[in-house]
Order: sequence, then C-alpha cells, then structure tokens
Amino acid sequence: MSTRPPSPLMFFDTINAYQRTAALKSAIELELFTQIARGHNTAAALAGACHVAERGARILADYLSIIGFLTKEGDRYALTPDTATFLDRQSPAYVGGAVEFLTTAHMRQRFEELSDAVRAGGARDEDNALNPEHEIWVRFARGMAGLAAMPADVLAQRVLASAPTAPMRVLDVAAGHGLYGIAFARQNPNASVVASDWANVLTVAQDNARKAGVQDRHTTIPGSAFDVDWGGGYDVVLLTNFLHHFNADENKRLLTKVHASLKPGGRAVALEFVPNSDRITPPTSAAFALIMLATTPSGDAYTFAEYEPMFRSAGFARVECSNLEPTMQQVVIATK
Amino acid sequence: MSTRPPSPLMFFDTINAYQRTAALKSAIELELFTQIARGHNTAAALAGACHVAERGARILADYLSIIGFLTKEGDRYALTPDTATFLDRQSPAYVGGAVEFLTTAHMRQRFEELSDAVRAGGARDEDNALNPEHEIWVRFARGMAGLAAMPADVLAQRVLASAPTAPMRVLDVAAGHGLYGIAFARQNPNASVVASDWANVLTVAQDNARKAGVQDRHTTIPGSAFDVDWGGGYDVVLLTNFLHHFNADENKRLLTKVHASLKPGGRAVALEFVPNSDRITPPTSAAFALIMLATTPSGDAYTFAEYEPMFRSAGFARVECSNLEPTMQQVVIATK
Repeated sequence: MSTRPPSPLMFFDTINAYQRTAALKSAIELELFTQIARGHNTAAALAGACHVAERGARILADYLSIIGFLTKEGDRYALTPDTATFLDRQSPAYVGGAVEFLTTAHMRQRFEELSDAVRAGGARDEDNALNPEHEIWVRFARGMAGLAAMPADVLAQRVLASAPTAPMRVLDVAAGHGLYGIAFARQNPNASVVASDWANVLTVAQDNARKAGVQDRHTTIPGSAFDVDWGGGYDVVLLTNFLHHFNADENKRLLTKVHASLKPGGRAVALEFVPNSDRITPPTSAAFALIMLATTPSGDAYTFAEYEPMFRSAGFARVECSNLEPTMQQVVIATK
Repeated sequence: MSTRPPSPLMFFDTINAYQRTAALKSAIELELFTQIARGHNTAAALAGACHVAERGARILADYLSIIGFLTKEGDRYALTPDTATFLDRQSPAYVGGAVEFLTTAHMRQRFEELSDAVRAGGARDEDNALNPEHEIWVRFARGMAGLAAMPADVLAQRVLASAPTAPMRVLDVAAGHGLYGIAFARQNPNASVVASDWANVLTVAQDNARKAGVQDRHTTIPGSAFDVDWGGGYDVVLLTNFLHHFNADENKRLLTKVHASLKPGGRAVALEFVPNSDRITPPTSAAFALIMLATTPSGDAYTFAEYEPMFRSAGFARVECSNLEPTMQQVVIATK
C-alpha cells in the first residue's frame, strides 16, 4: 500500500496524451529527427534545417526530450538509440511512413466518437474500415511496410525452422504490403507465394516483391478473403493481423475456407495480438482491443481460449500459441 | 549503456497516445468510474449502469486497467486510490469537469496544426485564446475549479504564513473561477479580495465566492488586466497561471502595472510552470511550454532566469522562486 497523497498527475498526463501524438507527428513531418542526425543539434541549427522558427524548434525538441525521444546536454539535442533506428529518415528501419496510417483522419474520428462505440459495442457498420477497397488499406500497405520488416523476418524464420529450403507454396491472405509472404520467398529460395487482397492494395505488394527480387515467385489473387477462390494445396496460409477485425462466426467461416485450401499437414499461421486470459497483459496486445472496438463492428483482441475453438471448429487438429520475440505480438499456428 | 535491441514500442505508444485521451474522456462521459465506485464492478454490471454494450464496457475497462486507472481481479474492476479521489463524481475532489476545458475543440485543433505553430513560432494571432471575452475562459472557470481547490489552499497558506490574520487587501488578476483569491478570504477572516477578469468570467467567480460564504469580502472589477484600473494599496496581487500566456515585454508592462497597485512591502505572487534552466525538468512544468507554443502567439514556460528580470525591470526589489508542494507548479514571489 502506498501512503503518498492522492495525485491528479496521471489524469493530467492522460487527458493531455493527445499532445504527445501531435508532437511526435509534427517532429516526423518537419524531419526534426533526421536533421538532428545530420548534426543540426541546437534549436538555432534546427530552425534553419527544418525551416521553422527557433522558438518552435526549441519548444518541440525540449518536449521530445522530456517524453524520451531525444536527450539534451546543454543546448544540444541527440537521438536516443531507438529514435536513431526508427525515426531518422536515413535509417533502413525508418518507420515515419507509418504515421499517416496510424493517425489517419478516419482513425482519429473513430476515437473522437469512442463513447458511441462503447454504447453500441463496436463501430457503426456503415463506416467501418472493412468495406471493400477502403482506401485506408492502401495507406496501411504503403505506410506500415517499414514496421513489418522485422516481424516478417522473425515469423518466416519461425515457420521455416523445421525445413528451411523445402519446396513450399505459401498463401498470404490480406497481404497488404506483402512483406510477410515476401519474407518466406526471400528466406526460402524454393518457396512460391500467392498474395491475396483488394486489387488496389496488391499493387503495393507487387512493388515490394519486385524490390525484394522475388517477383518471379510472387503472384496475386485479387478479391475478398471471404469470397475469392484461392485454389488449394498450400503448405502455409498466412493470416497476419487479420482475424482481429472479425467476430467469432466470421473467423470460423474464414478458417474453414483456409483449412480447405491447405494440403494435409499444412499450417495456418496467424500473427495476432493475443492477450492472456486476464485481458490486461501483455499490455500491447491487450490494449489493441480498444482499436478494434473503435474501428470495427465486432473485432477484438481474442485470447487463445477464444481462438482455439475457432480453429478447431474449422477442422484444425493441433492449435498452438506463443510469443513472437522480439515483437510485441503472438503467433497462433494451427496444423491440418 | 543499454544493450537491448532497438524497439519501436515507444513510437507506437506515443503515436497512439491520443487513444489514451479518448478512453479517459469516454470513461468520464459515461460515468464508468462513478458506477464502479457504486459497486457496478463487472463488465455486465457496468453495461447496465452506464447504458452501454457489455463488450464496450469490458474493452474500455480493460484498457483503463492496462493504463493504470483501474485494477482488475478476475472479472471485477476496482478504482485505484487516485481514481477514487479524482474521477468518482461523488468525491469532493472530482476533476472530471475539467475534461471539457482540457480537450476543447479549440485546443485539439491547435494541436492538429502544431507543425504550423512550430514553423511560425506560435499560434496565429487571429485565432488565439487571449482575445477579449473568449468563451474558452468561461469553460476554464467552470471546469478547472475542482483542480484548483488544493493548489489554492496551499498557495494561500504559503503567502499568509507570516501573518495569518492580518488585515489585507488581495487583488486576484485574471481570477477565472476565483478560487485562489477565495482561499485567502476563507483562510484569513480579515482579508478582502478584488477579483478582476472579463465580465463573462467573473460571474463564475462570484458564484464560487457565494458558495464559499465570503461574498461580503469579495468584489469584482471587469476588464482586461492590461488596461483596467484596479486602484491601489494592495498587500498581495495574485497572478495565477497568467504570465505564461505573454511575451517578456507584455509581462514587463503588466508587472509594472501590478507594482504600481501594491503598497510598499506588498507582494506579487505568480503561480506558474517554471522549468529549471535545462528546460526539460521538472517534466510537468517544462512540458507546459508546448501548450503555450500551440495556443498563444508568444507565451512560454519561462525559467526563473527569464522571470527575474521581468519583475526587476517592473521595479520589484526582491524576487524568489520555489516549488509549491504538493502541486506540480512553482511560485514566484516578488516584493515591492
């Protein structure tokens, strides 16, 4: 038991938390991190390099130092190791491109109306992101590729571990930027990948397959995951960050279709946010449920106790869940 | 030196931080904390009590448990001590009324355009909150009174310590809800208070003076702090959360007027966010500069090295700054 007096500090920090989003977004827009990496490390130097007022640069950089994205010694700012890796545009792991998707007006508006979603138990059906060819998914595919590169590599390593170069056919459902399927093709020269998604999104995946030099083993099938004919005989079906958008019945229907497309012994691989049964740990996966409440009619961060019967009712014999270190996510692997 | 691999976790947490604001705002709007305090402590019970979907109640309450406003044991939620003190509507220290001011569309819009403010070095002049009779200050006066009660008591104790019941005249500049001046009248039966602010705001201060039973020693002077005639001979002039809105020249002009209104030996008392000279500690006061950048043309969280010459050039002989424990703010006291 703490005996400190009650404090409204966390109330203030949280009610003002939107200002953190704004400061980070602004720093990325203005390339403040990139210019510090280039040596423009005082407010005066940043003002010139970022084409902003010195007072603006000083207050923004101080704020980013307070919340942990920069360090400050005297009047000089420096990037933390995390900031240098992910927020300097010159870094190969730059994730600044994800900001547009993560803070899109659609998302922001859904959270402005969060109380309505709590009342209704989900987003209004007519304005959710799951409608066909919703432009949000092109933004997702373009913006989130940087963030997906590491998880995609780790996921492919995990799944390929037992037979790293065996010939295999991989179906990448709701492929988006396509990086998950592409990682299989990059790591296994005998893997061929079929990416499926809306036609407007697949152009992004095709670009990425060309950039990765695997376009000869990367083909596409446009259409809805629930309706399109994928063909059959796949060794692996990837469902990355997809099942959380739907309710249990929709997932059962989808997983039945996935099961039918696998060869015997084939595996469905779902990268997901799977909280423990307490639904409050691990925090990143558990907190993801709020995004589903705000932006989908009935999606969720399902626990493994909820996922397992969905896979079993679709016909899968063995279903396992584990953390995908060092990502914050979990992977459910179900074997036919 | 840490040797952990680089992580984008802080990037994610910060770019999504606006969701924390939305969740807290929504919980206050829906009276979720108040209903938990009344014993409706499961998702199903909260659904009935708050008139929301059980799924909505569950996901929102889980999220609030993850970010620290609730605890969860099994499927039962409970308030933390801070939450019980400040977010249960039945608590005398309830601060939920501040949400409307703290997240007003005006504030949110200024932060949506933060990059413009960084470029210009401040908010556009035509759309800042310092215009006469701006409705935002009535919201402030109504909403922030709950949060000001404790600091007002502590500030009055500090200033009255040397002569707790001496007859004194107090001028409360930009009084807003009036609680700072009212605390002097409540603690010292021989203190009389003059509250000055825009006429529309003073009605709120007068209401609060009546509620505190000090209306006989509480009078008002409507008008701009920069132009209105306050009269003279005051023992104390209060400037609470006011100087940060203006630039140094404006503050010198204002403080010269304050100096003239004090009797010899009288004190100007400024409750402020005064960061250390590094401008990044203490975090609450240092971070306040960003709000001034976004919402005023040239306000700031001034350091004491910046405040001292403003007071001295206005004629003050002695200027001192100290933390006002247990608040997160500082107080500058200048003696004529």
